[in-house]
Formats: sequence, structure tokens, C-alpha cells
Amino acid sequence: MGSVWGTNLKVSIFGESHGGGIGCVLDGFPSGVPFDEEFVLQEMSRRAPGKNKQSTARKESDLPQILSGIYNEKSTGTPISCVIENADQHSGDYKNLVEHPRPGHADYTGSVRFHGCNDPRGGGHFSGRLTAPLVFAGAMCKLFLRSKGIEVGSHIASIGQIMDTPFDDISVPAEQLAQLRSQTFPIINPAAEQAMLRLIEEARMSQDSVGGIIECAAIGLPVGIGSPMLSSVESRVSSMLFSVPAVKGVEFGAGFAISSMRGSEANDRMYPQDGKVLCETNHNGGVLGGITNGMPMIVRAAIKPTASISREQRTLKLTTGEVEPLVIKGRHDPCIVTRAAPVIEAAVAIALTDLYLEAYGYARS
Amino acid sequence: MGSVWGTNLKVSIFGESHGGGIGCVLDGFPSGVPFDEEFVLQEMSRRAPGKNKQSTARKESDLPQILSGIYNEKSTGTPISCVIENADQHSGDYKNLVEHPRPGHADYTGSVRFHGCNDPRGGGHFSGRLTAPLVFAGAMCKLFLRSKGIEVGSHIASIGQIMDTPFDDISVPAEQLAQLRSQTFPIINPAAEQAMLRLIEEARMSQDSVGGIIECAAIGLPVGIGSPMLSSVESRVSSMLFSVPAVKGVEFGAGFAISSMRGSEANDRMYPQDGKVLCETNHNGGVLGGITNGMPMIVRAAIKPTASISREQRTLKLTTGEVEPLVIKGRHDPCIVTRAAPVIEAAVAIALTDLYLEAYGYARS
Amino acid sequence: MGSVWGTNLKVSIFGESHGGGIGCVLDGFPSGVPFDEEFVLQEMSRRAPGKNKQSTARKESDLPQILSGIYNEKSTGTPISCVIENADQHSGDYKNLVEHPRPGHADYTGSVRFHGCNDPRGGGHFSGRLTAPLVFAGAMCKLFLRSKGIEVGSHIASIGQIMDTPFDDISVPAEQLAQLRSQTFPIINPAAEQAMLRLIEEARMSQDSVGGIIECAAIGLPVGIGSPMLSSVESRVSSMLFSVPAVKGVEFGAGFAISSMRGSEANDRMYPQDGKVLCETNHNGGVLGGITNGMPMIVRAAIKPTASISREQRTLKLTTGEVEPLVIKGRHDPCIVTRAAPVIEAAVAIALTDLYLEAYGYARS
Amino acid sequence: MGSVWGTNLKVSIFGESHGGGIGCVLDGFPSGVPFDEEFVLQEMSRRAPGKNKQSTARKESDLPQILSGIYNEKSTGTPISCVIENADQHSGDYKNLVEHPRPGHADYTGSVRFHGCNDPRGGGHFSGRLTAPLVFAGAMCKLFLRSKGIEVGSHIASIGQIMDTPFDDISVPAEQLAQLRSQTFPIINPAAEQAMLRLIEEARMSQDSVGGIIECAAIGLPVGIGSPMLSSVESRVSSMLFSVPAVKGVEFGAGFAISSMRGSEANDRMYPQDGKVLCETNHNGGVLGGITNGMPMIVRAAIKPTASISREQRTLKLTTGEVEPLVIKGRHDPCIVTRAAPVIEAAVAIALTDLYLEAYGYARS
Repeated sequence: MGSVWGTNLKVSIFGESHGGGIGCVLDGFPSGVPFDEEFVLQEMSRRAPGKNKQSTARKESDLPQILSGIYNEKSTGTPISCVIENADQHSGDYKNLVEHPRPGHADYTGSVRFHGCNDPRGGGHFSGRLTAPLVFAGAMCKLFLRSKGIEVGSHIASIGQIMDTPFDDISVPAEQLAQLRSQTFPIINPAAEQAMLRLIEEARMSQDSVGGIIECAAIGLPVGIGSPMLSSVESRVSSMLFSVPAVKGVEFGAGFAISSMRGSEANDRMYPQDGKVLCETNHNGGVLGGITNGMPMIVRAAIKPTASISREQRTLKLTTGEVEPLVIKGRHDPCIVTRAAPVIEAAVAIALTDLYLEAYGYARS
Repeated sequence: MGSVWGTNLKVSIFGESHGGGIGCVLDGFPSGVPFDEEFVLQEMSRRAPGKNKQSTARKESDLPQILSGIYNEKSTGTPISCVIENADQHSGDYKNLVEHPRPGHADYTGSVRFHGCNDPRGGGHFSGRLTAPLVFAGAMCKLFLRSKGIEVGSHIASIGQIMDTPFDDISVPAEQLAQLRSQTFPIINPAAEQAMLRLIEEARMSQDSVGGIIECAAIGLPVGIGSPMLSSVESRVSSMLFSVPAVKGVEFGAGFAISSMRGSEANDRMYPQDGKVLCETNHNGGVLGGITNGMPMIVRAAIKPTASISREQRTLKLTTGEVEPLVIKGRHDPCIVTRAAPVIEAAVAIALTDLYLEAYGYARS
Repeated sequence: MGSVWGTNLKVSIFGESHGGGIGCVLDGFPSGVPFDEEFVLQEMSRRAPGKNKQSTARKESDLPQILSGIYNEKSTGTPISCVIENADQHSGDYKNLVEHPRPGHADYTGSVRFHGCNDPRGGGHFSGRLTAPLVFAGAMCKLFLRSKGIEVGSHIASIGQIMDTPFDDISVPAEQLAQLRSQTFPIINPAAEQAMLRLIEEARMSQDSVGGIIECAAIGLPVGIGSPMLSSVESRVSSMLFSVPAVKGVEFGAGFAISSMRGSEANDRMYPQDGKVLCETNHNGGVLGGITNGMPMIVRAAIKPTASISREQRTLKLTTGEVEPLVIKGRHDPCIVTRAAPVIEAAVAIALTDLYLEAYGYARS
Repeated sequence: MGSVWGTNLKVSIFGESHGGGIGCVLDGFPSGVPFDEEFVLQEMSRRAPGKNKQSTARKESDLPQILSGIYNEKSTGTPISCVIENADQHSGDYKNLVEHPRPGHADYTGSVRFHGCNDPRGGGHFSGRLTAPLVFAGAMCKLFLRSKGIEVGSHIASIGQIMDTPFDDISVPAEQLAQLRSQTFPIINPAAEQAMLRLIEEARMSQDSVGGIIECAAIGLPVGIGSPMLSSVESRVSSMLFSVPAVKGVEFGAGFAISSMRGSEANDRMYPQDGKVLCETNHNGGVLGGITNGMPMIVRAAIKPTASISREQRTLKLTTGEVEPLVIKGRHDPCIVTRAAPVIEAAVAIALTDLYLEAYGYARS
């Protein structure tokens, strides 16, 4: 139990940061979905580090090598597997950390969970690098969803306390999602960019890090996907989102703010348009009773600040029981929120593909 | 799919508000757990309506009839099933709603999802009444967890914008959880009670409703439960929490607020005490890398305001495509947050039992 | 883990023979399937004991009380739950068996598995009585499959070494399945009946019991259901069949006999007819590469002789470690094969419904 | 769905015969199991083709490249992934087969299932070659089971109608399993070897093929593993065994023969020995009520004759609807039963590991 997720689509993630390779297997992915290599590589690239001052200088060769499941430029319907090589490893950087578990990291919990046997180099299976195969899986799912008229996109809702303009939740145009996808720094309000970059740079200069929030939208979803109670859309999507390392909060629609609303405000009023049922507001984020209502699905994920900071911290030396100073070497992003955007989208796209397949099956033409 | 949840413990919830009965099946529940009927009935009673002005006057006879799985006052290890009769039904109240889906409710989405075949009376399977068997299942899981030294409890963190004092997240005493459980209005700071009750009464007088936030803690968890990535503790717990109707947000530890912290602040520093590894802060809410770290697990769930309000609302008449005024008859809570506390605890207890069994199996003495 | 089965359709069986009731929950059952009460009661009746000399004189009131999931004579799409009361219990008969585990029964293994906490009365959760809710679930699935043009039926292929004529495996008419369903003793060759009844009577007279084989057919299955390897049709159907107590063997098509064939004989040759692809033979039992090929699905299940015999047997007294004589009191079928037919059909119908829903989803009209 | 199997241990198989590679991911495999490379390679070698006249002359370089999950010669507890390259491909051999589905193969069913998009070369995902990663997964599970005192082994019970001596089912010595494992032709009675080889040679000379039966034993299993009804040991093991291509029957203990026994014979009598409970006979194959009883688990799988025979066969040309002669080129085993032995053992070892982990969890030392 651990690194397999899903019911009708199953995603299996494997690998350690400094091991023989990382990758994923997508089981249950429908046949006949056109493979768009350029799209997939762009998604990988959006997550990849080293593109600017804000992200780590490590060069990860995130080229996915597809071993199966794609034939004649289309998905076969049999498992899609992909391997990404690990290169540019500096395992020497991490030796010290086995004895000195890093605060905010899984070094201590992982060591107990796996009886001290897990690979500690570069965080091993806990490394943020494991989100690369997740992005690959998400890119494939986006191609499937696109073939059904569904698009998934996101923007940086906030870095620290600096906020971007939120999505217009009753109408998110596909063009906006495409535009955000093409931006290195995906925000809606360009005026926020400088303040956000300044905050990140400030964190970097003070050998510290900063977190943020990603807001993600899915548009074009049919009405009636999902189930009441134990398999609600929120249940399934959140379970995938909380699988992304560093996510500590997930909310749909108005989310936590809905708890301060009156019912008369929170209740989204329905009206007809072009044979469809629409809502005047979207405080429920496109999901009512666990089931899609045809409005954009809006979900936000809170990303904690990068745990690896270069500033000296104190931690427990496990062998002696003494609290000692620790300096984490290596290069680390002062802010992973930018790179988190495609990861959050991937998690959402995977969950929605699973929910879609449950509703429509694999046998449809 | 639908109304079954879990891996090693499986919970199956069934029933409609005005049907032949509601209930649940708990499969995989370990053998030999002493059955404490009084405790279970107290839990049911905490959720039951009609206890005060803040909750609906309906009298639900929430007495669980246990059909199997308990023998000689202990769990047998075979499926525990429980049925709760439906009484005091006023199905007449709801006939109008088939044509006029209530805003904020699942009337419309449910009708599409189930091709118009689901039972609309009293909300059918979407009724908040379905949380009664969830509380029963949670009460059983609390008995199991208690036998392992684990306690789960909660308080009302806020009603509208009025906030209670949060848990001291680095140390939640079992006595505090027991005390909260005994309170009709479970808050930590007694000074908040009057303001909260006033707000609820105000909502009631204006034929409206108000939401809130439940903060839940689990203490005594062993270190090393859960898995990285796709089966993280947060993943499993949130998937159960988002199964509770009206929950629109879930956060662990500092949650959304962690996105505004610096890494140097968010990283919980470890220190030794009595052979254990503790943390000076608990911004990660007891979970690191998806795995318990031995600190209290802290999770908050945002509850939306009751969708059923007596104030006139406008909605779409599905048969004509006209927007018309709607008055929802019947008696409804102006605030379900009080009654939500045991439901949120139940969801957490179920998820933790499943995670515990995965770690330790059923074969242990 | 134990008494829940399925992926898109989930069946949960609960209850003990002498407890408060037995029953099942069917989650994921599609909406809009007409409920045919008479059909369901007939299925229950086919399994019920006490109809002739060959079956036990116990009178079980196998009337299923449906609590949810049926509304306006159609399935709602939400969980269907059913409870069957336990009546006519003689718990006194079984007290002796806790200390003296019956050979061929689960008394010993169940006691170890459940740490001595399971209900021993009447076999508890291990009782053959638990197949009653299975038959209920199967009857509902048959109604669903029927709405898709699929029929499931069976006959007694053998009792002891006396064999019935097998199905004509390349063409099983729906009329034959209906005819068999209407027979108290479902065999194809009437000439075999007397010999079989004689054998059963002979076993009864010698205070012994006898087993047999059920051959089951499913016709009308679309081509292309199922998946290669780990989710083959055979995998899913056999896993359900081996859930039926007393089944010790399962084979598809020619089954074990195929191991003695040459490839040139075992390979079913395809030919066209009316736009369909048919086979001249059906040694593969309607499944190739784990996927249906449109031919009748043929599966056989071996049923062991009733373990409860009235003849004196020797067994181990657990408390003393002495081997002692044991006489099992109460009334027991000398042959359960007749009553097993609807149970085997139910298991097959449940598995096929799950496979069908995976292929076509719940959202189809 | 498809190519993922298991609950607490999850196995994911991927790849196509002539694609970029085949492999598997083992999720939930416990940490700390010593890796024995030699043992794993021996297992792979037992399945590999080309070792004698009876098996195909293709040289598959079945060297598993382990990408993750092994560190410092021990399992980490995180997913173990392995990739096996595809070499020696003659894709040209198979082009003809897209239009002319081979009798006895999944060409037709696979094409319908995957809407004509699956890779037909060498059978694609349906290729027997996909059993190589299964054997790898099985070898890892054998190492885990061995660390718990459990051994799994098998012999050829029959080729065509020529039978080997069956296991002594009440006592299978570990030495016998080790001995069989070391034999190229794993049979118990050396006298059967020549007759079996002659039969295979005869089939080969007549451009035909022949099937057989593998009998597999697991010894050292603790009492009390598995669950009644829907998660019986037989359910889980058979579901894995029927995932192996070419398996058409599975039986436990006396299996189909038990249907001809009297209850007095089939009931295995218990007696005490050295503080254990043993049985005088083992007609139930080590499983009672779905739960292990401590006796050897005995299971047999029927393997159909190789579907690819070089003799001319008739088949349907899908594009024209004409029945035409077909000659399958390439090299094929006249009998795959020898090579099937390690595959059957692997399936059993995987299922037992999953069942074991459910009973004991991952947190045990």
C-alpha cells in the first residue's frame, strides 16, 4: 500500500531520487487517445527545475522514456509505462542526513516506517523529484480529458501573503487556461508578479523559503459524475491532491470561507441557458452532493514552504539524542509553488480521469 | 464506487432518509474489541437532532440495531452490521422538490447521476441523516483505537467568523478530548459560546443558516503509520472527511496558513524526551511525508451553512425551464456545525483504523 | 478484509447464522433497473432448504426485507440493502462444537483467525446460510444483466460420479436456462435424476453426504469485456466462485480436460455468421486472453460433500489435546449440490455485473 | 482494472512483447527483506525459453533491471520496479495476424476490447512474455515468504494424459521443493520423464502442441490467514492464477475429485502433534472456510496446449469475412507446461504475500 492510486484508472509511481530511475505505470488508460509528445514534454518542462533564479540549479533530464502502452501514436489501452533516468546526482550531499533528520522532511518518519531500510539519498522515494512521473501521468490524462472536451489548468493563487486575482469561478475560459499554461510564472494579474518574485528572492537571500497556494480549475465536465458520500468527487480529488508532497490543505469552491457565509449566500442559484443548467455563483466549486453540476470545478491546494533551507537549523542527532545544528547542503528552491502548478493539475487530471472512466467505462466508442 | 470506503477496514453505508431504514456494514473490524454500548449510544446522541433550539425539532430514533459482528459483548471479527429505523417521516414535505431542485442541495446533480430514479424524499441517500450510521461506525472505531491508546476528539473551531481557541497542537490532553465530548456545545473557550449561539439564533430569526469549522485531534498514534505519496495519512483521512456532506475544505496542521509561513518557521524542530522524538511546533499536524510522526494529528474541516433555509429562494423549475420562487418547508437546523463534530470525529476514526490495520494486521494478539 | 467484493459493483455480505439477522449491501448497482419481486423470491426459494427429502428439514424464512435502493419499483442507483431474519434457531445444538472442531468445517480455522471471538452458533458467519444474501444479490444482478440481454443459468453436472449431459457449449438457448431454473432438480438429462436421487438417499441412509459439480452458463455477453492478465474474466469470476463455501475447484470451457488436448483441437476456430464472429467449438469457455469472445461463458464449480454428517467422527478436543468421538446433532443436507445451483449462478451474475459496469459505466442511458 | 492486482501488496505488470520493454512494479513490499540476486535470476531462468528442444529457440534476455526499491541489498519498503528489455524481436513474423486472428489467441478479443489500438506484434500485452515480470515479482515474494518460514514449489502433475506422482499432500518436505526447483524438468517420478518428453516431441513433430497440469504446494503457512467468503484464500489465489495466460482450471486439495467423495472421506480428521493441530488427510488443500489450517496448501492449475502451432489452421479474415487458411510463422513451444511451473509458483507466492501482509501488516519487526 502506498504508491498505487485509483479504481478504474490506476496510477503506480515508483523510484528513488538517486536510484536507477523513477517512473510510473498507468493502468486502465483508455485505448485510442492520440499521443501528443510535444504536449507531454511541455508539461514535464513546466515542472522541471533550473529554469530561473527561483528554482534550483540542478539539471534534471526529465525526459520520459515510454516503454509500453503507446503504439502508432495512440494509446493502446494496455498499461502505459514510463521511466525517467536519474542523472546529475550528488549523493555525497546527503550522507549526513541519515543521522540528522531534517526538520519538515520525512527523514525521521520514513526511517521508522521502513525500519531504516529506505534509500536516504536525495530524499529517496520522498523526493519532490517523484512528482515528475506524476506530471507525466497527468499529461496523459489531460490528453484523454481533452478528447472529451475537458480542460484542466491552474494559476498561483498566492505566494506567501501576496495574492493573485482568483479565477472567475462561474466562467473560466479555455483560453485563459491555455494562456496560464504557457507562462513561466502562471498568474492572472501581471501586477502581482513583481511582488511575488521579490518575496521569493527575499526568502532566498535570507536562506529561507516561502510557500503558496495553487488554484486549479477543470472545465467542460459533464453533469452527474461522482457519487454521494464515500466516493464524492471531493473525496477522490482530495485524496490525489494530498498525495502530492508539501500539500497541507485542500478546499473546493469557496472552501474554508464558506464557513463564514450565510446559507442564503452560499446556495448557488440555478438558471437555464442554452438548454443547460447553470449557477449564478459557484461557492460549491462545481460539486454538489459529491457529484459534478456542470460548473467549473474549482479546487485550491496549500503548498508549504520548501523544507530544505540553507540557513542553519537545529535538529536531533538520532544516535546520540543530542540536539545539534544542521546545515543542509545542496541547491534548493526557495519556492516550489511555481513548479507545483503542473503537479497539482496532474493530480486533478488523474482523479477526474478515474471518475470519468467509472461513469462511462472503457467500451464506449 | 459510491458508498463503500476503505482497504483493510471497509465501511459500507446504505439507506435513504424516508426508506425502510439506514445503516452500515463494517468489514474487517478486528475481533476481540470490547463493545461499550453506552459509549456508542452517547456518540449517536451527540449527532442526534432535537436537543436544543439550534437543531431541528425532528425526533430521530437513532437507536442502532446491531445485527451481526458483536457476540458476548465483544467484536467477532466478522462484519458488524447495524440498522437504524426511519421514523417521524413527513414525506409530504418534499414532493415539490423533485421539480424544483433546491439550491445548495444535490437534488439536481443526484437526479442526473441516477437518471431520475433516486428517492427524493427527505434528500434520500443524500440526506444528512446518513451520517448517523457513519457515527455508529466511528464509535466502533473509537473503541478499537482506544484499545490501542489512541483517542480522537474535536471542538467547534468557529461558527461563522466567531472563533474558539484552537487546540494547543503540541499537546492535546486526553482529558480535554473527554471533556469536549461531554459538552453539548463542544468549545474550548467558554467565552465564545454566547457569541456563537447568538449568531446561530440570528441566522434562525432571519430564516437563514450559518456554517463553521470543526477542529479534530487524534492523540496516541504510533510513529510510522501511513505511506509516502499515494496513500498518505492526509490522503486517506481527507478522502473520508470529504465523504461527509457539507464539508468543502480540509487542512492539516497549519493548513492554508502554512502557505504564508517561511520554511524556518514551518519546519517543526525535533527534540528528545523520555526516549521519544517530539517537536517544538506542530505546523505539519502530526504527519510528515504522509506518515505519522507521533505528534497529535490535527485536522480541520470546513462545514458549509445548512443548504435548507426557510427563507424564500429562487430556483429553476426543471420541467418548464422557468426560474421560480421556492419555499422549503419542514424543520431544519440553522447550523449543523454542533452536530457535525461527532461526524467529523467518526470520519477521522474510521480512516485511522483502516491505516492502523494496514500497519499491524488482524493477526496480532 | 473479507466480506466485501467487487470494483464497480461492490457486494458486502454480513451476518451470523444465529445472530440478529443476515443480509447484504449492493453498492454501485445501476439506477433504473425494474425490480421484479417475484423473480427475486423465486431465486431465494431455489436456495431455501426444506423442500424435499434431500435437503434439511429446517425451515428458513428467507424473506429478504429490502431497506433501501429500490423506489417506485426500480433500482435507485444508491446502495441496495437487504436484511433476512434468523428464525428457527436451535443454538443448543452447537454448544459442544466449540471444544470439538468439526472435521471439514471452519470451526478450528475460524477460531484461530478470530482469536476465539467469532460466534460459533450454527457456524456463525461461516454458515451456509450466508449464501442466502448472496442469492439475493445475484438475483438483482440477473435482473440487471437481463436488461442488457444477458442470461445466467446452470444445471447439476454431476452428483458423486453420476453425470448429467453437459451444456451444448456452442449454443445454450435462453429457453433451456429458463427451463432449468423452473426445475426443483435442475438437470438436462431426465434419465440421470433417479440415479442421482438414489445416490443422495444412499448417502443419507449411511449417515453420510455426497458432493457434485455445477455447470453454469452465461449467454448474450458482448464481445470485449474483461482485461488481459490481472483482471481477466476468469480471475474475477473465479474469485467470486471460490467465495462460495464448499467450492474447491473452478474451470472454464474444457477446463482441466484441455490439458489433455492437442492445440489443434483446443483452438476454437472462428467463422462469420450474421455479422458476428462465432466459434466452431468452445473449449475456451467464451473467454480468450481474459476477454469475452461472444460465445457462451461456461464455468464449472466443484462442490464438496456436506461436511456435517450425522455419522460419528473422530476429532480433536482442543482443550485436552485428546482425539475423541464426535456426533454432530441437528439436521443437515446429505447433498447441498441442488441448493448450490442458484448460489453458483449468483456468484457468476455478480462478477459479470461488475465486469459489465467496468466496461460501460453508470452514466449510459 | 487490467494489470494491477492486490490489496496490501500491489503488483502492476506492464509491457508489450515487441515494445520498449516489459516489467513490473511491486508496491507494498515490506522493507528489510534481503535481496538474493542469484535466486531471482534462477527463477527468471527457469521460465526463460530456449533451454531445450521442448521450448522455443528464441533467446530472450530476461535480465531484470531493478530501478528502485532495493538498497544496500535489502528491500526498502518503497515500490520495487523492474524493467526487462525486449530483444531478438522479429516483428515481421506477425504482420499477417492483424487481419487473421489466430484461433485460441486473444487477437480477436483484444482487438475488440482495445478498439483495434493494441500492439499486435508478438501478441503485445497478451504475450506469454509478460509472465517474465510476473516471475520476477514472484521471486521477490518467495524471498519474503522464505524469511517467514514459508516455501512455495511445484511439479508437472501431467503433460497430456501422462501423469507424475502427486505431492504427498499431508507432508511436502522443503527439500523436495528445493529439489524440484533445481530440475530442468520438475517431476517427482523420474519414470514419467521419458514418456512426457516423447509426447511433447510427438506433438512437435506433428506441428501441434500439448498442455498439462502444474501442482503447486506452499508449506509453512501460519494457521488463520485469509477470511471467510469474499476474501477466502482460494478466492485470492485463484484470481491470481487465472491471471496467468493459458490457465483454464484451478482446484485446491482434492479439487474436482472431492465432488465424488463421501463426506466421511472428504472431512480431514484433526489430531495433535507437538503442540500443533494436524490433519490425517488434506482433501481441503490446507484451506478450510477460506482460512489456512496449517497443512500444506495444495493447488493445481490446468494449462492449455500452446495456441500457436505451426500446422495450417483455418481462421476468419476479419476484413473480408472469409474463412481462410492460416500458417503461424515463428518459433513456438510445443509445450509450455515446463516453463509454466515457475509462473504458477509466482502467482501463488504473490497472492500469499498479499494475504500474509493483510494478516500481519508492515509495521512488525
